[in-house]
Amino acid sequence: MVLAVEWREAGTPCLRLIDQRRLPAEETYLDIRTVSALVEAIQTLAVRGAPALGATGALGVVVAMRQGHDEGWDEARLRAEIARIRDARPTAVNLAWGVDQVTPAIPAGVAEVLRLATQLVADDEAANRQLSRHGADWILARIGKEKVRVVTHCNTGALATTAWGTAYGIIHELHDRGALEIVYADETRPLLQGARLTSWELTQDGIPHVVESDGAAASTILRGLVDVAIIGADRITANGDTANKVGSVALALACHRAGIPFVVAAPSSTVDLDTATGEEIVIEERSGDEVLVVAGHRTAPESARGFNPAFDVTPHDIVDAIVTERGVVEPSANPSPRLLEAIAG
Amino acid sequence: MVLAVEWREAGTPCLRLIDQRRLPAEETYLDIRTVSALVEAIQTLAVRGAPALGATGALGVVVAMRQGHDEGWDEARLRAEIARIRDARPTAVNLAWGVDQVTPAIPAGVAEVLRLATQLVADDEAANRQLSRHGADWILARIGKEKVRVVTHCNTGALATTAWGTAYGIIHELHDRGALEIVYADETRPLLQGARLTSWELTQDGIPHVVESDGAAASTILRGLVDVAIIGADRITANGDTANKVGSVALALACHRAGIPFVVAAPSSTVDLDTATGEEIVIEERSGDEVLVVAGHRTAPESARGFNPAFDVTPHDIVDAIVTERGVVEPSANPSPRLLEAIAG
Repeated sequence: MVLAVEWREAGTPCLRLIDQRRLPAEETYLDIRTVSALVEAIQTLAVRGAPALGATGALGVVVAMRQGHDEGWDEARLRAEIARIRDARPTAVNLAWGVDQVTPAIPAGVAEVLRLATQLVADDEAANRQLSRHGADWILARIGKEKVRVVTHCNTGALATTAWGTAYGIIHELHDRGALEIVYADETRPLLQGARLTSWELTQDGIPHVVESDGAAASTILRGLVDVAIIGADRITANGDTANKVGSVALALACHRAGIPFVVAAPSSTVDLDTATGEEIVIEERSGDEVLVVAGHRTAPESARGFNPAFDVTPHDIVDAIVTERGVVEPSANPSPRLLEAIAG
Repeated sequence: MVLAVEWREAGTPCLRLIDQRRLPAEETYLDIRTVSALVEAIQTLAVRGAPALGATGALGVVVAMRQGHDEGWDEARLRAEIARIRDARPTAVNLAWGVDQVTPAIPAGVAEVLRLATQLVADDEAANRQLSRHGADWILARIGKEKVRVVTHCNTGALATTAWGTAYGIIHELHDRGALEIVYADETRPLLQGARLTSWELTQDGIPHVVESDGAAASTILRGLVDVAIIGADRITANGDTANKVGSVALALACHRAGIPFVVAAPSSTVDLDTATGEEIVIEERSGDEVLVVAGHRTAPESARGFNPAFDVTPHDIVDAIVTERGVVEPSANPSPRLLEAIAG
């Protein structure tokens, strides 16, 4: 099984990341030993995906402590460097969450921080496997077919988490139960995580699938070619509004029109009870060149500008199920301002 | 203004096409004087877009007659060469339509055929300008703002028509009236007509715009960043269901949710009164490699398959206005099985 995020003790210890920018053409790894290298890896999406960023945040504190020890940082400098990791991507609540999980242990020393961070990685896989069982149960009960056809968006597999996956984990679970017919994987522009990463993982796992343009997803749903949409989340607010990779809300709108379930899966740590609704979520806007330059080729005139919001927000009234390792809630059927308390971390 | 298709009398007369394969990096023109050169230009998409292909077919007959005169073709050879043009892209009905419009005039001589073909081009531009005025009037009355912000999908400008454009023509008209603030142009995967062609035309015409991923369009609409969506159509059925480039229906779903108008613009010849509803429209499925290979780079693993429907269908109840040169109908407000009779060709 692929490990997207891993601590390596052998040799000079490091945080090892699979370089997701180079997949599927090359399987290469980054051995991270400095905060600057880590921040660059996060910002350029060598590592991405909410739970993977949580693990990266926690293990990143270990990187900072080791570098600080070697370079003789004082307490203030260490805190400032950890803050750089924590703030490397604004919309990704898990990154800050991962950092915050281990910082109280800093006075206890680097070994204790590493123990906590490693535990967090193990907990993530266990949570993913549990939420996948919950999600598969809910979907099969709701749809009432022996085999289901799924559409998904972006990448939520082992590469996005640390192992197993969230929305992808449910797909994997359905496949393992013999209850999966086919997956329609959106390519997920601008960075093509669906074509590059999800299709690669589906291929590794022997799961039947096709890759489609993001613009095709709504019509795939409306034409009756799929039974359910399953996606991940970067943040879920107290009322069940969900932020996820840009393009997600179009799937939700189409599912609502088609009368098929739109399912969001994430570890409970993705639930942000301090944020009341999706209207409060700041949408990260990334460089327009991510849209305008594809595989080194510029698609638009030199003077054109790109508009590149990284996420969109799906309102809770068109979200049929939110799944965490703690269970399932149904925002469209049971709206409530504090609905997510039931399955939060 | 750009002319995608033009007859040039100066020097040795020719059919001049802008080479759309090289846009936006290079603005080069093809001076076509032989049937073989024309067939190659059509088949490799140097010229594309339904109305532009109609004009190309008609002017192509002139090319064939001139070449036949120079090379001493007999009647049978001339007919065979014209058939090669007519069949260059078997699914492009406008190409055959353009050829058929002028072939009855062949006995009257090349000057008469050229007159008819030139008239056809002029009629297309006149229709586009008229529908643009209708569309701009309707949009400004409906929105009630001095300046509007527009989202559009694919390419519907001079490059897709012969001059001026359809949905793009409305945008141009709004700009000329000082009533346009900005255009959000979807890049339009898989073939990137929005990034390559629409952005190029907007740049040529000095119209402020940004290019966004197709997946961003729904959230751009839901976040209140635009006032109206304006798109073209490849076919409009009797009840107002519309087929257009895949990705269009997501814009319509988002506009419906956001309460802003979704406007479809096309010449009246696009209305197909013989087709009752969109459910009867067969969706062309193109090669999956168009999705999986971008700028010569494969995005997904070698074994992955692409799913590539070229069009989608937007149901009439979420289409707020359909505009042709004959006027405007409002399918969402006034549903009727024969609504489009009022503005059909």
